[in-house]
Order: sequence, then C-alpha cells, then structure tokens
Amino acid sequence: MVKSELQVARAAYQPKLPQALAGIVKVSEGTATESVADQAEIKKLFPHTYGMPILTFQDGGESMLTAKMNVGVILSGGQAPGGHNVISGLFDGVKKLHPENKLYGFIMGPGGLVDHQYKELTAELIDEYRNTGGFDIIGSGRTKLEKEEQFEKGYEILKKLDIKALVIIGGDDSNTNACVLAEYYAAKGYGIQVIGCPKTIDGDLKNDLIETSFGFDTACKTYAEVIGNIERDCNSARKYWHFIKLMGRSASHIALECAFQVQPNVCIISEEVEAKNMSLDDVVTYIAQVVANRAVDGNNFGTVLIPEGLIEFIPAMKALIAELNDFLATNGDIFNSIKRSKQRDFIIDHLSPANAAVYASLPESVARQLSLDRDPHGNVQVSLIETEKLLSEMVATKLDEWKKEGKYVGKFAALHHFFGYEGRCAAPSNFDANYCYSLGHTASVLIAAGKTGYMASVRNTTAPAEQWIAGGIPITMMMNMERRHGELKPVIQKALVKLDDAPFKAFASVRDSWARETAYIYPGPIQYFGPSVICDQPTHTLKLEQTK
Amino acid sequence: MVKSELQVARAAYQPKLPQALAGIVKVSEGTATESVADQAEIKKLFPHTYGMPILTFQDGGESMLTAKMNVGVILSGGQAPGGHNVISGLFDGVKKLHPENKLYGFIMGPGGLVDHQYKELTAELIDEYRNTGGFDIIGSGRTKLEKEEQFEKGYEILKKLDIKALVIIGGDDSNTNACVLAEYYAAKGYGIQVIGCPKTIDGDLKNDLIETSFGFDTACKTYAEVIGNIERDCNSARKYWHFIKLMGRSASHIALECAFQVQPNVCIISEEVEAKNMSLDDVVTYIAQVVANRAVDGNNFGTVLIPEGLIEFIPAMKALIAELNDFLATNGDIFNSIKRSKQRDFIIDHLSPANAAVYASLPESVARQLSLDRDPHGNVQVSLIETEKLLSEMVATKLDEWKKEGKYVGKFAALHHFFGYEGRCAAPSNFDANYCYSLGHTASVLIAAGKTGYMASVRNTTAPAEQWIAGGIPITMMMNMERRHGELKPVIQKALVKLDDAPFKAFASVRDSWARETAYIYPGPIQYFGPSVICDQPTHTLKLEQTK
Repeated sequence: MVKSELQVARAAYQPKLPQALAGIVKVSEGTATESVADQAEIKKLFPHTYGMPILTFQDGGESMLTAKMNVGVILSGGQAPGGHNVISGLFDGVKKLHPENKLYGFIMGPGGLVDHQYKELTAELIDEYRNTGGFDIIGSGRTKLEKEEQFEKGYEILKKLDIKALVIIGGDDSNTNACVLAEYYAAKGYGIQVIGCPKTIDGDLKNDLIETSFGFDTACKTYAEVIGNIERDCNSARKYWHFIKLMGRSASHIALECAFQVQPNVCIISEEVEAKNMSLDDVVTYIAQVVANRAVDGNNFGTVLIPEGLIEFIPAMKALIAELNDFLATNGDIFNSIKRSKQRDFIIDHLSPANAAVYASLPESVARQLSLDRDPHGNVQVSLIETEKLLSEMVATKLDEWKKEGKYVGKFAALHHFFGYEGRCAAPSNFDANYCYSLGHTASVLIAAGKTGYMASVRNTTAPAEQWIAGGIPITMMMNMERRHGELKPVIQKALVKLDDAPFKAFASVRDSWARETAYIYPGPIQYFGPSVICDQPTHTLKLEQTK
Repeated sequence: MVKSELQVARAAYQPKLPQALAGIVKVSEGTATESVADQAEIKKLFPHTYGMPILTFQDGGESMLTAKMNVGVILSGGQAPGGHNVISGLFDGVKKLHPENKLYGFIMGPGGLVDHQYKELTAELIDEYRNTGGFDIIGSGRTKLEKEEQFEKGYEILKKLDIKALVIIGGDDSNTNACVLAEYYAAKGYGIQVIGCPKTIDGDLKNDLIETSFGFDTACKTYAEVIGNIERDCNSARKYWHFIKLMGRSASHIALECAFQVQPNVCIISEEVEAKNMSLDDVVTYIAQVVANRAVDGNNFGTVLIPEGLIEFIPAMKALIAELNDFLATNGDIFNSIKRSKQRDFIIDHLSPANAAVYASLPESVARQLSLDRDPHGNVQVSLIETEKLLSEMVATKLDEWKKEGKYVGKFAALHHFFGYEGRCAAPSNFDANYCYSLGHTASVLIAAGKTGYMASVRNTTAPAEQWIAGGIPITMMMNMERRHGELKPVIQKALVKLDDAPFKAFASVRDSWARETAYIYPGPIQYFGPSVICDQPTHTLKLEQTK
C-alpha cells in the first residue's frame, strides 16, 4: 500500500484510552436490567442474555491475564470512519491479556463467518491500518446473520480456530443479530461469547448508555467541510441556491449535525416532517418562502440541506408509494403495454383520489421514476429518487406561480449535490480515533470478563478521553418488538431525531435567523495536529445531548 | 461573521514572503520581450505595453516609500482559494509603501468598476479575511471589460477615487482584458496602471514565467481528499465503480493532478483524447477494458476520473454538436412539432452519416439532452451533459455485449459524483496562502515601480517560500492571436495539458499499473499545523514541471 504523508504521520498517533483501561481493570456490575419495552417477549426470546447488569470498568482490579485464547472480529454493513481503530484497540487489548492470543478477521462481513473466509490479523497487518479510514483490512458485507444454519456454520469455523469470542462491529440490525447469536451459542452451551460494537455514520444507534455510534463524528465533519466550502462559494458568487442531499436513510442526525456546523439557510428534518404530517407541497412551500424572503433582501442565493430519507417520511408520499406498489404489482402488465405518453394518466385514473393528486403534482421525471424504476420485487426504488432535484424543481415551479401573483421578485437558479460516500471512509478524527480504539479495547475486557450479549460502551464522551467511562451494556436492554416483513421481531430501537430533545430544540430556536440572514460558518477540513479546540471537539449533537 | 475555530486559528497565520519582498526591493530589468506568437500583430495592438522587460525583484534596493496613493482591486470570474490573501498581501504592500495609502475594492467583479460600486478595504475588514477561502470580501463577477465605453466609465471612478493603479485578479481572459485596459489607459495618458494576478483553479493560466495559477493547489487537494475517501470506500465495499467528474472545462490539469494524488484506476485526459482523435466509443472501450481486466482478478470495483470538458474534446462529438446546432437552428420548428418518440429518428435521418451514427450510439437521455436542452442562442448546453453518467451507461452497455460474447465475466454497478463547487472556496492551503499573499505583495511593488500591463509573478515555487523569486511579466509576452466569435483577437494562450510535458508523461508511464492494481492513495484533508512534509508540499504537477 502506497501511503500518503498524512497516513504515515497518523500511523504514529497513539489513540487515547479512558483512564480505567490503561491499567488493570476492575469490572463493576450494576443491578439487573430490563428491555426498553416488551419486557416479557424479549425475556422469553433471550433467556440466557436477558436482564444482565450494566458493567462499568474501574481502575485497579486484579490481574486480568487470561489463558491463551483466540478472538474473531467481523465488520458488518456500511463503512464508518474508525473501524480499523476498533480492530486495533481490540488487538492491543487481546494481546495485553496474553501475548500469544490471536485475532482473526472474517472477510467481507458476516458472510465470511458463514463461508469460513478469514485471515489472522497480525501485528504487522494491524500496524498498516492504525488510525486509517475504511474497512479494507478485512472488508465488510451485508449478509444478515439470522438463521440457525448460519450460526452452526459459524460455530464450525469458530471451534476450528479455537475462538473464544466474536466481536461484531455494526449498526442496530447487526447488533441485534449479534445478540441473537450470543443467545444461541449460550443456549447451546458452545462456550463462545459474542460482543457488539456500535457503528454507523447515521448516528441512529444510540441511547442513554451508548452515547454515539462511531463514524458519525468524522463523517459529519467531512460533509460540513465541503458544505462550508459550497456556502462560501454561494456567498461569493451570490447567484445559486445549492440543494445538498446528505446520507441518512432513516434518521436525520447527519443533516442536523451538519446544520449546526455550517448554519445553512434551510435544513429539512425528516422526523419533523412526519410528526407534523407535512405534505410534499408543505416542504416545498417552506423552502420557497425562505427563497422569497431572502430575495426581498437581494439575496438570490442560499443553501438547503436535505436528508436522504425524506421522501419516506412524508406521510402522503409514503401512502402514494404503498398504493403504487400494490397497484403495479397487480396491473404491471397492462401498465407496460400502454404507450409511454399515456402511462401517467393511466396511473392517475386508477389511484385513490388523494394519492392521484399527489402523483399528479410530481415533476414528470420523478413520476416516471416512481412508476418505472422498480426493484426485482416490483417495489419503487426510493433511494434512486433524486430528492434534491425533485425539491428544487418544485420550488422553481412554486416561485414561478408566486412571481405571476406578484408575491416573489427574484431570480432562482439551483445546483445539486449529494454527499455520502465522501465521508464514510474518511480517516477518523481524533474523537473517532480515540472512541473507536477505546471501544475495541473495551470489547477485549468484556471478553476477558467472560461476558456475552453485551455491547461495548464508552460514555462521558464530551469530557477528555482519559475521563471517559468504559463498560458493557446488555444488548437486550436496548430491544423492543417491531414488525419486520410482517413478523414481530426483537430489535434494537432505532434512535431517530426526537423533536423534544436538546439538538432539535436548539436548531428550531435559531433556524429562522439562519434562513433570512447569511449566517454561514466555514468549518474547514478536519485537523489532526493543531490546537485542541480545533482537533478534539465532539459533535454539537453530542454536546447538546450530554448537557441536558 | 460567526467564525469556526479553524478560521480563528488561521487568521493568525502569517503568510511567508519571498526574501526579496521582506525588505526594500530592488527592481531588476531584463531585456526586451516578444509575444509567444503573432509578434507583429500583438505589437501593433499594444504599442505602449509591448516588448517590456521581465522584472525580477531583488533584496537591497533604495527606499521605496512613495507619495500617498490609492489602489483599486477587482476579483474577476470563478472563485479560487486564496483570493483574499492576494488582497491582504496587496493591502499590506500598499500600506508599507505609505501608511495613508488606501485600497478600494470594486464590488461583484469588473461590473463594479463600470457601475461605480466599490468599498474601501480597511485594516479591520482585511483582518476578517486573512487566510480564508472565498471571494466574499468584495464578491466576483463575469462582466468582461472589453469596450471603450466601459474603460471610460471605469476611468471616471478611478479618477474620482484618486486611484493610481488597478489590480485585476483573474484567469486568462481577465488578464488579457487587464492588458487591453492597461494599453488603453497608457494610450490615453490617463496615468492609471493596470496589473494582473494569475487566478484559476483550472491551472490553465501558466507558462515558463507564471509557474501556476493560484487556487489550483488547494482545489486539487480538496478534491483529492474526497476522492481518496471514495476510493477507500470503493476498496472496502468492493462492489461499485465510482465515476467522478472534476471541474475544468478546458484543461484537464485538475483531473491529472488529482490522479497523481489518489492513483485511480482510470483518469481520462481530454487533451489526449483530442490529440489521438479518439471517438466516444474509444473512450468507452478503454474504460470497459479496464473494468473487464480487473474483473478477471475478482475486483469488480474501481475509480474513474473524468474532466468536465471531455465531450468537447472528442472530435466526433464536437462535429456532431456543431451539425446539431446548425440543423436545429434551421429546422427547430419542424423538430418541435414532431412527436417526442419520433424526434430521435428525425435527427438521425437528417444528419450526415458520420454524425448520425454517433448520435444513434448515444444513450437516450443524452441524445434527448443534446436535442432539447438548448441555450437561448439555440446551442447545445454541453455543460449540462452529465458526462460521468453518459460514460458509465455506455460502459455498462459495452460490458453487456462482451458478456454475451464471453469476453467479460463480472458485475458492474456504477455510482456518480461531480466535484467543483466543493473546492473553489476552500480555505487556502499553506502553499496558496503564501503564494497568494506574495502575489498581492508583488503587485504592490509593481505599482510602486510605476509599471503597467504586467502580471505579478512569483517563481521558483517548489523551493521554500523564502527562496521564491518575485517580479513582473509583461502580459503581452503571453499573447497570441486566436479566433473568438469569428474575430481574430489578441489573447493569452491557454495552457492545456501537453502530452510531451513531464506531468502527462509521468502519468502515462504508470497508468496501466494503476488500472489493473488497486494502487489507491488516500491523501486525507489539507493540514495546516502538522509537519511540513504534510502541510507545505506543492502539487505533483508543479514539482514535475519544475524538475525538468
């Protein structure tokens, strides 16, 4: 691997650990826990891993040196900055327990466990990846570990490699599956522990005890850097509205955090749109009104942040998509036999009046996308909809109407951007480098303590790293029952943006002034070597959440 | 203005100056110069500013303190990182000449001079903008200063403000116009000097004496940061080909420099495509072959860099667009009256066979774009063509054919990106911060020395800043005659990528191994505070050009 100068310098960075992890760790156990909801059902499904206590690591335990053992690790799902540091923290922790301990990585995600694809992660290999972005040390994948057959195939290779514990680094679904696997191995008496680590740039795997998922910090800062640059361009050229879509299919945490970092004119929060039952036209009208207000001041430019998942949070769009899916499932053949120019009317004629009206209001390109670009199951591919273009087109149409009515005087020209892949594999910020390394190290202590069904937890994360509090949280504690593909399943509750939490409330209190004024902030690129106030700050979201 | 912590820290950065500019400057004059071509015509058009000597600044002159004077400055054209540092270097230089000297900025580009929109740039204001990105201190604009009437309107306000010299910060066209203005004011005996500064992220304003245009360094590093992140994602997920379009309508310098920084699998250089008379199919075949070769190794992922201006460099596309423009200019009404589904055939039936074949080979969306999305003059809007999607669609089609023929076994899925606005207003790298500040300071010395029709020049830029050589280059020296809108005009020669220059040759010698292997480099974000090897490196392009 040819390395950039920055990689070379960063390789030498020694991530910080919570004080308690630096020496010999004492594991302190709290009282028994309950799941956040559906206690009886969850307890029944997880007899061996339910109700376990919260663990907190403290300084000054007895020696934790254990007998020789091997550990396995899996990266699951989408990339997030810092994955390599979880692995290097785990490696160092495991080696500290016993220098002959071995760490095996399963290749290309959970599928590597099932297909017995693995490699030993040696010190030499680990050293190549310290403090780097990406998941390329072993790759990642989206195979879901859900079936007994998979668990048994996994057990085969784990037994063969003499692996005592498996660490699964993933999002809410992967951690749910980690717990199911932990329960299964415990029930079978296989003696293999399973530990989870909270990963996702989306920031939607968090709760009172898991303060943040790793990668959120770096990804948001990377997006904020380029959005800030666009804002400065916008404010220099003074002639474009930039519509910027940001990754985050479910939660709008990324958009909200970026909004704090760059203070755009508009930031749409999907969860608010849903809670207020806003229509697509409501969203468009809101943006158009901001454009019109700024035009009064002669400011025919601005910046709009849009979360990727917005469309599915608009109740009317959700209803339309559901009916379209049903309708085209049964009438697909007729639809396809109709002349292209007549297809739109055909749909409008056959949908329920409310959905027909929504469909008719869509720009032609989006209407076509909804009816034509369908996945192999016949469903609309919502992720292909270019929401940023959809909104700017509809805003332009609305402004044209207002212009005719004399309600708008200005020029409107839009440019579009989508940021996602630009941040998922950025080299981790100091925060993520430290947080991830600590999570990996924490996982090794949970293993040494013989725990299973736990998620590594590092708390008090707005304090300096030395004061962070490490420990373990029973995964069952985060679960409730949710309907998935028609079945009730135990899953970790996804943490969406809550309208009564500090971050959203802080945003709501200032957004009107950001909308009218040009209050842009230009955060610039992530720095690794400068003053701590630049290099070591956690996200606004985390700070606001922790100071409640 | 609310400032980010990084902005606050960077405000304190003192840009470095060439040694000769630190003290009292001695201006050393070379021999008379000639224009690069068309000497007789250029000399005739610029009797007062032709043939002037190259100026080199040296240490140890007499006192340069001058009588009180005022200076004006204009930002012209697209944003480039470092513009504010040119202005602050100019400001500090002008104040050093005499503390009561004043600097006026004309608002929103050359139009501000014509319309008499200006503001005084005070020390307080300048301090807000040191080492920041953007052109927002006075804004920029694209009004072309070409007409005598504009020159006279400009003279009115310059005289009124008692401005002795005007500094125009712009690209090749703006500097051409600066020289025309210098000549005009000299011919009229108005006593107003005009000095140019080389700006453009595209890097196409350079020659033996102007080593680089400012902003190229920072913009390329910003693009390389996010492309590197995408590459790391690509190499972790191992399932996508990322097609990345990069700004640069004329020259491919940005794509080439980014290629050195990130080592992608493919980088298309427009100038090579034109020189080799490659067809669109040739370009598609080249990319598809790289995809197919990597698929043999099981690597169904990769990164492709595409310069924005590619389409116009493909001779066959150029010919097609020219004929389409002519054809639709005369047959537009008939075309518009035809059913949409028949329009494509209508065009194919009426074009010359060669162009009809090219048109027929295009994906429908692009064919439609070429025939429908036309500017007010009826011309194809080439900049609206999503070249990155066009190429990936055609590559997919080609791979499907090869699959049927048994020549390709693999999976191909593409994602698309376009980077431009993300880098034009980034905060300047140390290189650009120093280079721009030096350029501005150099302009002040040229003014003090009574010069006009010169471009500020800072050379030896691969050495530490103290060893840089400042001076002035007669703008006429860079000119030749070119046809513009049907008329022969004196213009600064645009510096395209030259196939026999060191950068392209270095690229050509390694691209085959980059294509097959995964040789990605992840440069990471621009750093300001770390080791010099990370923070102070010039571009690969510059280093390769200067070590010839």
